[in-house]
Amino acid sequence: MAKHTIFFHNRPRIVATATIAGPKECAGIVGKYVDKQLADDRFGEDTFEKAECKMLTYAIEHAIENAGKEHDEIDALISGDLLNQIISASFAARDFNIPFLGVYGACSTMAEAFAIGGAMVDGGYFSNVVAATGSHFSTAERQYRYPLELGCTRPPQAQWTVTGAGGAVISKEGGSVALTCATFGKVVDYGITDVNNMGAAMAPAARDTLITHFRETGRSPADYDLIVTGDLGALGSRILKDLTWEKGYDIGKNHVDCGEIVYRVIEDEFQGGSGAGCSAVVFNSYLYDKRKNGGIRSVLFAATGALLSTVTSGQGESIPCICHAVAVEVI
Amino acid sequence: MAKHTIFFHNRPRIVATATIAGPKECAGIVGKYVDKQLADDRFGEDTFEKAECKMLTYAIEHAIENAGKEHDEIDALISGDLLNQIISASFAARDFNIPFLGVYGACSTMAEAFAIGGAMVDGGYFSNVVAATGSHFSTAERQYRYPLELGCTRPPQAQWTVTGAGGAVISKEGGSVALTCATFGKVVDYGITDVNNMGAAMAPAARDTLITHFRETGRSPADYDLIVTGDLGALGSRILKDLTWEKGYDIGKNHVDCGEIVYRVIEDEFQGGSGAGCSAVVFNSYLYDKRKNGGIRSVLFAATGALLSTVTSGQGESIPCICHAVAVEVI
Repeated sequence: MAKHTIFFHNRPRIVATATIAGPKECAGIVGKYVDKQLADDRFGEDTFEKAECKMLTYAIEHAIENAGKEHDEIDALISGDLLNQIISASFAARDFNIPFLGVYGACSTMAEAFAIGGAMVDGGYFSNVVAATGSHFSTAERQYRYPLELGCTRPPQAQWTVTGAGGAVISKEGGSVALTCATFGKVVDYGITDVNNMGAAMAPAARDTLITHFRETGRSPADYDLIVTGDLGALGSRILKDLTWEKGYDIGKNHVDCGEIVYRVIEDEFQGGSGAGCSAVVFNSYLYDKRKNGGIRSVLFAATGALLSTVTSGQGESIPCICHAVAVEVI
Repeated sequence: MAKHTIFFHNRPRIVATATIAGPKECAGIVGKYVDKQLADDRFGEDTFEKAECKMLTYAIEHAIENAGKEHDEIDALISGDLLNQIISASFAARDFNIPFLGVYGACSTMAEAFAIGGAMVDGGYFSNVVAATGSHFSTAERQYRYPLELGCTRPPQAQWTVTGAGGAVISKEGGSVALTCATFGKVVDYGITDVNNMGAAMAPAARDTLITHFRETGRSPADYDLIVTGDLGALGSRILKDLTWEKGYDIGKNHVDCGEIVYRVIEDEFQGGSGAGCSAVVFNSYLYDKRKNGGIRSVLFAATGALLSTVTSGQGESIPCICHAVAVEVI
């Protein structure tokens, strides 16, 4: 019987992170923790796509700088994003003389990059890797939903794609924040077809991975100070709590969702934030700081992703979802 | 100074492969080696996208079957494809109760999946993984270029996206075909903007990775029976030979390109085949057979990818390219 959890016995460290976010995001919880607050979500570029790529480049570059490393000490960049052909990651990688591993797990990409990067460092293949991802409201909206100029009304179950990017340097040693294990998720599809209801679509995938993680590690929700999901939003988070409770796991006391907490006034964005940048920014700024500087010692970071495209939705398909989880602990 | 080549000291094995291809492809060199020849490139589905997904599902399922494994012995599926949001891989993964790692390197995806899968098995994290990818002429053409119904004339430097899929099971033991090392590529962009001239765009990336591989391993082209590139096509292959020769490496004697050899009458498809399925089918059928059953003992498999999208081309960007290489040897 296959096991889906891998253990990092050499405890690779997250030695530094860097984050950048847009004005709406910086008005919320992450504002005082990001490396750069953008006043203009175009970031001086003439297209939103170029702005998204520039944010990701910023996060990668500053994560390396914050780690006190030179670029040529970095063995690999593991990155992906929501845009077609993960162009933000590919074009950001063009600016670095670093091998590039493109990965895609929609909004779960940050956790997938942590898990692969953790294994590559733990296994002794690489000494330092950068894991990074990002998203932009305006690129995601026009790629997945409607032209921005159309000004469509949003349904109450919708979320708002985070404009921001986050990156982390994973090294074989340095500091006290370690990756200790990872659980790779299966694709789970409960038949949701509403592309505005991502939280409901992704919650069963999060449940599947969390319960697999608890079973295979022998841990319980209480063993973590925080169980952090990526971007289920307010509605999806409530669904996840119910779904895990039904299976005998009570995550109610220590669960927090990056999408639910990222915006200051959640009502404005209905169910909260989403996007590959959502968990990347919240995890690598606010939550990383909380681990280094007190309070939180053990986090299970379970980022979720909806693996749809406009083509599959157009062809009548439902939304397959995934969740990858990594345990990050202060040692 | 970072090294971009990783060594697999436990020599994970490619224990089995499976391939499937369309009628045009099966008229060529791979016809007698694939597990299934398609008479109809719709594969009984109502859309080309669903046919592409079904081919990939077939390759994954039959690779597991050919390896004599049960599905629950497989620890991970590492897969990606050319379609937006790698839907063929994600939707194929939905049918398997196996953790899914989505990867994207355009037409280099097969080599990226081999390299990551090799490391995960070599490092002891997983016992058996499936690496798989595929492509379909009709889905790629309408996504990247023009509607099929438009009947556009193709320029002489164009290639033809292969309709096919290939998968392989990588295990910690079994058989004699082993992954021995991998070189991850950097993103290389020489400023080519012609989306019909992929071979010229990708050749410098192949040169970069091949030379990095030779330098870091201390090997020379003569140490391999075959140096196999993914889908440079006839023109791109000639450019690669020149570019490597300029740097003191003569690959002329043992280089072969999957795109150049895949079709029976290359003139019909101008420069030959391309697509994530091109190297996946040729490598996992014809070349895998040649290694098991005589002649070829050591292969450097260097698949190349063009990391563009229609959005980047529309915004005036050039084409960033990448090449990942894995050494596959009979031990």
